[in-house]
Order: sequence, then C-alpha cells, then structure tokens
Amino acid sequence: MSLVLGVDPGSRLTGFGLVQSLGAKLDYVTSGVIRIAPTLPLPERLDLIYESLIEVIEKHQPSEFAIESVFMSKSAGSALKLGQARGAAIVAATSQGLEVHEYEARKVKQSVVGTGAADKLQVQHMVKTLLKLPKTPQEDAADALAVALCHINTQKHLLSVAQSKHFRRGRLV
Amino acid sequence: MSLVLGVDPGSRLTGFGLVQSLGAKLDYVTSGVIRIAPTLPLPERLDLIYESLIEVIEKHQPSEFAIESVFMSKSAGSALKLGQARGAAIVAATSQGLEVHEYEARKVKQSVVGTGAADKLQVQHMVKTLLKLPKTPQEDAADALAVALCHINTQKHLLSVAQSKHFRRGRLV
Repeated sequence: MSLVLGVDPGSRLTGFGLVQSLGAKLDYVTSGVIRIAPTLPLPERLDLIYESLIEVIEKHQPSEFAIESVFMSKSAGSALKLGQARGAAIVAATSQGLEVHEYEARKVKQSVVGTGAADKLQVQHMVKTLLKLPKTPQEDAADALAVALCHINTQKHLLSVAQSKHFRRGRLV
Repeated sequence: MSLVLGVDPGSRLTGFGLVQSLGAKLDYVTSGVIRIAPTLPLPERLDLIYESLIEVIEKHQPSEFAIESVFMSKSAGSALKLGQARGAAIVAATSQGLEVHEYEARKVKQSVVGTGAADKLQVQHMVKTLLKLPKTPQEDAADALAVALCHINTQKHLLSVAQSKHFRRGRLV
C-alpha cells in the first residue's frame, strides 16, 4: 500500500492531492488548493505554501511525494516565482523525511490521459473518472492528483518489470 | 543589539554571513559557503540549503534575516534554479520564526560600497574593511555579509529618522 501526496506548486495557487493505492485499487483521500493573496510579502507567501504542506503531511502521513518537473518557462520573471514556490514545496517534503519524485508534465499527461499533449480539461476529466469523484476537481488540485497517479503508475510499472525480469531469470537458470 | 544573518542563495553556492551590531559597533561573527554538488538530485540540493541554514540559525540564534531581492535574471532556466534556492532559503528562515528582509542588489552595493554600480571585488574589499577581517572573504560569503550590513545600516537609518521625527514633534508641541 502506498499513500502518495502530489503537489502542483504555484506562486498564487498550489494544488495538492492524496491518493492511496493498494494493488490495482486506487482511492481518493483528499485534495485542495492553497490560495495565496498576491498582496502578501514574498516570505509570507512562501511560508504559507511550506506550512500548509507540512500540515497536510503531518495529518495524512503520506509515504511518497510527487511533483512535476519543470524545464521550460514563459519568462525569467515567472520562472523565478515558480522556482520559489517549488523550493518551498520541496523542502516541506524533504524536511518531513519524504523522498521527492519528479515527473515531466508530458509524462504525467501520458500516464493519466494517454497522450502527452492532453489539455487541462482532459486531465481534470480523467482524474475525476479514475478516482470516481462526484465532482470535477479544481484545475490545480486535479494536476496535483494527476502527478500522484503518475507516480503510482510508474511504481507499478517498475515493480512489474522487476517481477518479469525475476521470472525470466527463474526460467533461465 | 542585533545579530543579522545575511544569505546569498544560489543553486550551486549559497553564501551566508552573520554580523552583530551594537550601536555603531559592528562585529563579524562567522560566514561560509554551502557548496552543492550539481550531480545531486534537485530535492537533495534544496534540502542541503534548507538544513544547513537551519543549522546556522539554531547554532547562532540570529535576531534578523536579510536576503537580496531579485528582479531580473539572465534566462528562464537560471531564474528557476535561483528561485528554487531562494524558496528553500527563505522558508528555512520563516520556519525558525525569523522575519525576512529583502534588499535590491543596487541598494546593498550602495550601502556597503557607496555606489549601486560596484563590482564583486569592491564589495569583497569593503566587507573585509568594514568588518576588519584578516582575509578577503569568498565572493558568495562576502555578498551574504554585505546584505547583512545593508540591513543593519537600513535599520539604523530608520531608527535615526524615527528619533529625529520624534525630536521635531517634541519641539513643535
């Protein structure tokens, strides 16, 4: 069993989502959005992301942490803001002893929707379907749940590759 | 008396410096550079910045924290890296209950060297002179000490403005 916390950091909205997996069974635990008033001074904004995520981690005790990796950004200004939010989110996880797993946006979409070129609406729709949610989650919460699902799928795939290698070795010897 | 921790964050080198001020007296306490192997995974790099600064804060118990603000960056890629390092450094301070003060690079140079266009060597030289150091500090450590000195100067200026306003009010009433 694993309990995965996915996070989609941003300087104004940081989404988070918790998914539990047991074998092929996926269970939605919770999700939400940390909303940060742009009028707050930067240190307070970053502290809000950091403290809110630590609160989620302390309450739910996830076993793993997943976040989207970033390679491209529109501008240096937005990259700096996103970087600061990511830095605060990542050390919130590492300070609580969680390993951080990063996944490219294309891989997250591929894993959840089946195509790396999926748009936000498709991600929201598939997250709702896969987790049997009564309502479509907010965009940033859906992205956070999607990266958690991507991590669960990747771990399962790695496990099944390891098992099939073991099986092949068993036949060869 | 105030004990100011200045920090110059970077994804490979993060400088820090502690300066104590008592009236007009300035005392160098310590400084150093957190060196981060670029081969380490990002979460470990950010955690090193975060944990090392918390160690410095726990050991020396500074009363204030100062950091350079950033408005411009060469590229989106370097802005993202710098942002992540800044985010980790800032929440290290806020998590320990420290208020974070930000100063523009020009203001730091103006405050320490006397001109906002000063280069790195001039900053290193003036930091060495002002703090009566036996050797020139490493570049990032010097930048960290410079932002601490800038904060001390700014606080003194604010205090003297407040006092002179108080004095003027005293004469007017």
